[in-house]
Amino acid sequence: MPQQHRAHATRRAILTAAAEEFDRAGYSATPLSAILRRSGVTKGAFYFHFPSKEALATALIGAQEAVWPELRERWAGRGCDPLQTLIGFVGDVVERIATDAVVRAGVRLSCEGGAIDAGLPSPYPLWERALHEMLDGAAGAGLLREGVQPASAARVLNAALVGARVVSCALNRCADVVERTRELWPVLLQGVAAEEWLHDWEDAAVR
Amino acid sequence: MPQQHRAHATRRAILTAAAEEFDRAGYSATPLSAILRRSGVTKGAFYFHFPSKEALATALIGAQEAVWPELRERWAGRGCDPLQTLIGFVGDVVERIATDAVVRAGVRLSCEGGAIDAGLPSPYPLWERALHEMLDGAAGAGLLREGVQPASAARVLNAALVGARVVSCALNRCADVVERTRELWPVLLQGVAAEEWLHDWEDAAVR
Repeated sequence: MPQQHRAHATRRAILTAAAEEFDRAGYSATPLSAILRRSGVTKGAFYFHFPSKEALATALIGAQEAVWPELRERWAGRGCDPLQTLIGFVGDVVERIATDAVVRAGVRLSCEGGAIDAGLPSPYPLWERALHEMLDGAAGAGLLREGVQPASAARVLNAALVGARVVSCALNRCADVVERTRELWPVLLQGVAAEEWLHDWEDAAVR
Repeated sequence: MPQQHRAHATRRAILTAAAEEFDRAGYSATPLSAILRRSGVTKGAFYFHFPSKEALATALIGAQEAVWPELRERWAGRGCDPLQTLIGFVGDVVERIATDAVVRAGVRLSCEGGAIDAGLPSPYPLWERALHEMLDGAAGAGLLREGVQPASAARVLNAALVGARVVSCALNRCADVVERTRELWPVLLQGVAAEEWLHDWEDAAVR
């Protein structure tokens, strides 16, 4: 294996081991030794890639941050209406959280303010802004219920999505986050979407 | 001050100081010395009340657990319909979280699985069950929208309420949790409540 590939594989092995250990016991309770043991990497190799456990957490947060724009662009290119795009994008996000331990650990670390002291900003304003943009698009296309304010609806949607992930991750390490998220839509959309859009969406769900 | 009262006051001072420090820096990052300094209590007096920082966390969790049945009973005795009771009870819960640092710290600790290793169960199934019971009452009184399943609606409401608290606590130590929770209802109730009930509720809000 060429040296660069080997370095990349080592880095990936460390991130995966860290994600799995943090998933199991939480960031604070996980000693570096457990991550080394699980990754099969020497201390020397570890410190070549990461100066500290905190640097590892920052790398995990960065790894999940890199995933979302890609998913969002993919959905933007599909020609769905803004609400279908929002629902499809969110579906892909939670699917990824359920199946990818590195992404899951990164999301959890980015949300748990106390876990690391790296001065990283909370992701919530970012998520609210992304939802707000998508709902602005839906408002422009006449897809929102009368009287619904996109900024307020974005905060409500974000709260429900954050809560579904938090509860699912606490109860079963996010194993049922896809189902818990899917269950939100019939309730949330009733309060957010225009009646005509809802009829089409319910028809499509029955088919 | 009689000895028993003094012991109670000391215990309360320690819990309040711990709650404030955990609020500021998180459980893991808070050393016992910071709690002692803030409470003005000697090490000896501290250990008379609590054997460890973990015992302190368990006491804070117990303190918030004791609050909810009392609030729920108060609302049950008011003769409101089941949905009004649910909304009123939740309003009192978040009001308490916003204004009482001891309760706020206890809720946060009970939710953050990784924070303490005391093997305490997650509170989410309990909250879902409480909401489920109230929604069963609403279903029995014919107040739910056609097709709404109380168990599913309870999970959705719980997710939204948990998320509003988590986001608010991360962004401003729960200062706006009352507003963020209030903002959920118009969206959530549209998906959960029967149309007739909604009309009455919206009329009452306008008045």
